[in-house]
Formats: sequence, structure tokens, C-alpha cells
Amino acid sequence: MRMFDIIAKKRDGKELLAEEIKFFIDGYVSGEIKDYQVSALLMAIYFNGLSEAETTELTMCMAKSGDMIDLSTIPGIKVDKHSTGGVGDKTTLIISPMVAALGVHVAKMSGRGLGHTGGTIDKMESIPNLKTAVDREKFFNIVRKIGLCVIGQSGNIVPADKKLYALRDVTATIDNMQLIAASIMSKKIAAGSDCILLDVKAGSGAFMKTLDGSIELAKTMVKIGENVDRKTVALITDMDRPLGLAIGNSLEIMEVCKTLKGEGPEDLTEICISLAANMLNLAGKGEIPECEMLARSTIEDGSAFNKLKEMVNALGGDTRVLDNNDLFEKAKVKYVVKSPSEGYINSMDTEKCGTSAVILGAGRETKESSIDFSAGIVLNKKVSDYVNLGDTIATFYSSSLEKCKSAERLFMNGIIISPVMPQEEPLIYARVTKDKIEKYEVANCRR
Amino acid sequence: MRMFDIIAKKRDGKELLAEEIKFFIDGYVSGEIKDYQVSALLMAIYFNGLSEAETTELTMCMAKSGDMIDLSTIPGIKVDKHSTGGVGDKTTLIISPMVAALGVHVAKMSGRGLGHTGGTIDKMESIPNLKTAVDREKFFNIVRKIGLCVIGQSGNIVPADKKLYALRDVTATIDNMQLIAASIMSKKIAAGSDCILLDVKAGSGAFMKTLDGSIELAKTMVKIGENVDRKTVALITDMDRPLGLAIGNSLEIMEVCKTLKGEGPEDLTEICISLAANMLNLAGKGEIPECEMLARSTIEDGSAFNKLKEMVNALGGDTRVLDNNDLFEKAKVKYVVKSPSEGYINSMDTEKCGTSAVILGAGRETKESSIDFSAGIVLNKKVSDYVNLGDTIATFYSSSLEKCKSAERLFMNGIIISPVMPQEEPLIYARVTKDKIEKYEVANCRR
Repeated sequence: MRMFDIIAKKRDGKELLAEEIKFFIDGYVSGEIKDYQVSALLMAIYFNGLSEAETTELTMCMAKSGDMIDLSTIPGIKVDKHSTGGVGDKTTLIISPMVAALGVHVAKMSGRGLGHTGGTIDKMESIPNLKTAVDREKFFNIVRKIGLCVIGQSGNIVPADKKLYALRDVTATIDNMQLIAASIMSKKIAAGSDCILLDVKAGSGAFMKTLDGSIELAKTMVKIGENVDRKTVALITDMDRPLGLAIGNSLEIMEVCKTLKGEGPEDLTEICISLAANMLNLAGKGEIPECEMLARSTIEDGSAFNKLKEMVNALGGDTRVLDNNDLFEKAKVKYVVKSPSEGYINSMDTEKCGTSAVILGAGRETKESSIDFSAGIVLNKKVSDYVNLGDTIATFYSSSLEKCKSAERLFMNGIIISPVMPQEEPLIYARVTKDKIEKYEVANCRR
Repeated sequence: MRMFDIIAKKRDGKELLAEEIKFFIDGYVSGEIKDYQVSALLMAIYFNGLSEAETTELTMCMAKSGDMIDLSTIPGIKVDKHSTGGVGDKTTLIISPMVAALGVHVAKMSGRGLGHTGGTIDKMESIPNLKTAVDREKFFNIVRKIGLCVIGQSGNIVPADKKLYALRDVTATIDNMQLIAASIMSKKIAAGSDCILLDVKAGSGAFMKTLDGSIELAKTMVKIGENVDRKTVALITDMDRPLGLAIGNSLEIMEVCKTLKGEGPEDLTEICISLAANMLNLAGKGEIPECEMLARSTIEDGSAFNKLKEMVNALGGDTRVLDNNDLFEKAKVKYVVKSPSEGYINSMDTEKCGTSAVILGAGRETKESSIDFSAGIVLNKKVSDYVNLGDTIATFYSSSLEKCKSAERLFMNGIIISPVMPQEEPLIYARVTKDKIEKYEVANCRR
């Protein structure tokens, strides 16, 4: 078998055999096949796509390129969740305790922030003393003991994806549905859970800007999961505006606590109820409406908040900051962003919000940058709100006034205020299962 | 400027700017831009093509990546000729002396054999003592003195093409019209002649298998040449069967001598008259029919054969073998291939003929192999000839019987004998100039 023939075959629009995909992935990971041949194949895939069979095979070959985590020694059904990445998206830290409080196990590896999107691991590390680098044994033991553990990616998980992603990133071959799906699903499959809930974002702050694109991506991923016997469901959720009010690491942990105490923003709370209900449903806890009631009960009875504290404690974190958010370290500078006019906020560019938070210090401008955990944005107004001239739209937290001024310019660039009230949009656009696509109406909406 | 953006732009089907093409070529040649980004761009070009402006710009950037030969110190009009490569194609060594005998200067660099096709330089080196590695000054002096010199490629000619071709060869991106055209034309433009005649082969032994493909390639190259002020014309010639009767290095030199003495095969003679007439026409020696008469006269009066001897002498070669071909070293084994049936030869696979000659020792099986100058094939029968059972179809020359047996199997695999006489096909299919495409009828045919 020769890589040349595999490139030519895909270039000519033909379907690759399982052994050809295996040859390519194994050879690339071992270093026998070079970047320049792989980038030519990736560009051919960009143009000619991959069939469902090819995508599934690629995903499995990638998953098997490194450690496959075996969670079978942990009793019960394990449910994983993946978000395609958003701004202010702290749902993992809300829904994992919710479902764990109901006996569904979550043994999850999460990532760090990338570009304008935040990462669960960075958010967790804003809790004093909490360590997310945990060895396999301790990770398993925490899940066995409290039914829940979220840690950073450790070990040699899907090395094929690391190499392929780095190459795609410099050869303009990121934007391909099947390659995106294989990248995400290979990591979820290697992570070992029985069921996978996918939160696919749509809108200005998301990777997929259009609803149709997001649904296509969701379908592709659900098919991969089901083809390899993982129960997989996707929700298409809105990322046309930030989720909740807080963007930034400790600011988001505070919002997580509020939400688990029943005092969170309505949009965030509702989306978390839906996500948690779908995880419970995947784990066989009943139909969706029933699972929504169960999920809601974990907020009402405090069991979800307690579960979060148990996990933080197990990871060495100081749980006192969760009970009393005032104990979090404060940002040096607090800066108020005021409305320059009056009217309804018609749109708030999510990517610009995310990048503004990065400028304030909440994210990494380069891979080597360090994070200011206290930095970020709290939105005082959101899309559809009416503002008067001089009203506070947002509050910025940072280490310097200069950063605040610079972030404000970008942030305000993304805000449109008009006399007309904007149309309402659903929080959740659709639910994709192996059998069907349910699209939701505006009834399921933001306010 | 970033290579990433150039890849993405071409991937999205947009036209690259001149400075973007220059950035890519300069960066690639200097090593700042890596193979893996270039191969992704090449694959995007494979799918989305290049416009005429892009192709011309690419060609010029490639040409300028190394030495640009300045022939202006040599008086008169210099005409170059390029063949896309064939089997038994010894036309350069026939037509160059013809036009030089009429005062049109030829200062030409030629290549070696590649795969199943032979190379002019290998053929020349079958003449005892002849040296094709000649420095620039001696090359120029020979052209000034006798009006003709054909040598091997020397110096740093189009390094961009060397790097790009090697990368295309392993990434399945050879087969693109514009990249092929830029590769050929960059070398012709760097070689410095005022006029360029292109001999584009069509048929089973050619790079372009179809007539339409060959015409497209010819149009693309003619446009490039004319865009940068080189008078350029292309003939589309038949490569559905080998040219002439001899395949192999000294065997072909013998056929060159015969043809220049007026005793050559008719197909080879006629195609050489046409090619030479077009070179003369490019150099302003008159209309095509007039130039054909002039070309013919150089055979009749012996001036072309004398010009060949002058060049061979100037390059240190032993001209006695030209006057008396029996002085060429003989192959150890002479092997007769006989017809297994009776009927008309309907086809003779040119690529298989070429590869058979390579097996006999006439070409290189790997880049490092050495050539057996005496090895090769003389065809005793050609397409359209009638053969009886046991008639000699071809005579093989080699160093061993084993090689002959092995070559015979492949050779006979490419021959179809049938009771039906095949249709006649033109020797020259078409002539492509900047203004028009003239297609020729079968009147201009093989026999």
C-alpha cells in the first residue's frame, strides 16, 4: 500500500477502504508518512468529503492511535458530554453535578480555552488549590466514590488528532464537517463513556455559524457514535450571544454556584436543565419531560451543588469559595461599560465578547500566556434588553485600565442598539438522534 | 502575507494576486515555506485550477527562481523546441540541424530519459566521446560558430520547478494542466530563446492520453509564451505508436542519420519536416509551405547531416559513427520477436514499447541505473501492417536473453492483431497558435 495511491483515490472522489485509512493514520502517527502527503490528502478530503463509513473508520483509527480508556471497572452507566465550544459556556460544571446527584456517572476529561472560547479546566483552576492534572487511578477512584470527576486531558489520548489538528490548522483544512466530527468523536470514544451528549453550538460565537451547518455536523457525529455502539444524542444550542452573564474563569464559577443554587440566569438554567435531561435520558432514567423534572429537583434540593463541592474537595480545591464567592481573589480594576445611545440591544457579537474577555486577561493570547483568573466580563444587559443612554451594559474586570479600554472598543464594536425590538430566538434549535431531527419552536426561548 | 491565507484563498476558488504567487514561490525556494503547506496549495490548485493570469505569473516566478539565460549576445533569432516526451522521439536531433543549416540558431538544453520515454541527452551520449556537460561559455561559442548546440541542463535552472515537481510527484498533484504548463514553460523561458515550438504528444504513449487534453495543454502553454513575449506555437502530434522504427539510444542515432540522409521512415521524416517548418516560420523564414520546402532541401543537399556532424564534433564526439553506423558498439544479444498469428496490427501500446526498451537496458529503471547504449528495439512492422504467423514484428537488442524474454512478454501484451485493417490516423492532429487552433485531416497521415 502506498500513501500516494490513497491521495490519488480520494482526489478522484473514490471511497477509501478501512485498511487504507488505517494505513494512513498508523503511518502518520509513527512518522513514516510525512506531513506533505497528509496535507495533500486533507485538502482532497476538503473537496471530496468522506462517506459515513470512511468517517467512522477514520474516527476509530484515530481513537485507537493512543490510550483507549476502559471505564468498565466503574459500575453503572457513564455519560460524557461535549460542547463544540462557546463563550461563557460553563454548562459542564453545572450539568455534571446534576446528573451525578441522580446516580449517573460522569468520568470526563475537559480542555483548556482556545482562541475566544473558554475551557472548563481553566475555569476549575480558578478555584484555589484545585488540581486538574490527576492520574488515572485517582481519577477512577473519585468517580467510584462520588460518581463524578472532571479532569484535564492526561496520558496519550488520540495522538493522531493532535498531529492532524496541528497540520489542518496551518493548511486551511480545518473547515470540513467529517474531519471536525472525527476529531471530536475520536476523543469522546477514546475517553470510554457508554453514552455521549453533544452540545453543538450555532451562531456568531460558534465554529458553525449556520443552523444547517450545525445540524449537519451533529448528524455526522451522532452517526459515528451510534455506528460504534455509543448511545449518542446532540442538541443544537444558540451561540449568537454569550451563555449566561459571566465570561471569565472565577466569574463563571460564581455563576455556576448561583445556578446550582437556583439563582442563575434563566437562559443558562434552562439550557442546563435540557442538557442534563438528555444525559439522564441517555442513561435510561426516563423520557425527556421526566428527566427535566429530575434535573430541576437537584437544584431545588441542593444535591447538585453538594455534588460539585464533593468533586472540588476531592480534587484538592478550597470549597469555601463556592459557599462564599466573595472569597475569590478580586480583579485590580473594575470598569463599567456604558451605553452610548438608547434602544433595544439587537445583537451582541459573541466572538467579540469572547475576544474582549481574552484581552482583559481571561484567556491566552498565545499558547504560552498565563491566565488572570479574576479577569472577565459580567453582562448587565443582554440581547432584547432596553437601554438608556449611559446605562451600564457590562462590567469589566482586569489588571489594568488600559486593557479595559482596549477591550471596550472591541466589545462595543459587536453591539447593535436600535429602536426596534429584536425577534426572539430559541435557546435550543434542535435535537438530533440517530433516528430523527426535532426542530424546536420559539416557545422554547430566551425570555 | 501568510501562506495560510493563500491556501485558503485558492481553496475557496479565488484568484491569487501576482504578489501572492511570488511570495509562495520565493518562500518555497528559500525554504521558509514548508512542503506541507505547498502540497495543500497544490491540491487546492488541482481542484480549482489557475486562471491564465495566475498561470503566467506562476511560470515567470518559477523561471526567475534561478538563472535566466541571456542569449542576446548571440546574433540572430534563437528558436527552442520542447517535446512533452515520447517513445522513439529523436526529432530534436533531426530538426535542430535542419533549421541551423538554414541560419536559424538553436541553443538548446535537453533532458534525460524518464520512465518509459527516452531523452535526447542519453541518445547523444551513445556517440563515443561526446560530452553533453558543457559550460555556458563553450555552449555560447559553439552556437555562435556553427549556429547549433544541444547540451544537458546545467547551472541553476528553475530550482522552483525541481522542488515543486518532486513534491507533486509524491502528492498526486502532477495531473493539472496549469501546473504542467507552468513547469514546461518556466524552463523554456529561463532558457532564453526568442521563439518556442512545442511538440505536444497525444495518445497511449503520451502524458496526455486524449486529443482534447493535449490541445488544452498546448493552448495554455502558447498563451503563457505569448503573454511574456516569446513567439510560441504548438503542434499536437501522434504518440499512439512509437515514432519511427528505432527505440533505444544508438539505435535512434542511426535512425537520425538515415533520416538526415533522406533514408528515414516516412512518418518520422514527415513529422520532422513539419516541426522544422514551424521553427523556421517562427524565425520569420516564410509561410509554412515555403518553410517545408526549405526544410526538405536541407535533407536533399546534405546540409542538415553536415550540421549534425559539426555539432557532434564540437562536443568532442566521434563523427565516424555517423558516417558508418556499423562502428557503433553492438549489443551482445539480438532477439527476434515473431508474430503469434496473422492479420493487421491494429495497435501497438506505445508505453509498453517504451517500457520494453527500458527492460532491454535502453533506459533507467531507477534514477541511479546506468544505460546500455546499444540496447533497444527496432520495429520491423508497425500499426496497419499485415503480418503472417511467424513474421518478424520487432528485433530486440540487449545484454541478455533473459531481458529479451521479459521485454517480449510486455511488448506482445501491447500488440493487437486482427483481421480488420485499422483506421488511418493523422501524424499531426492540430496546430495551436495564439490566434487559432487548426485541426488536420487524415490526408496528413502515416502512410
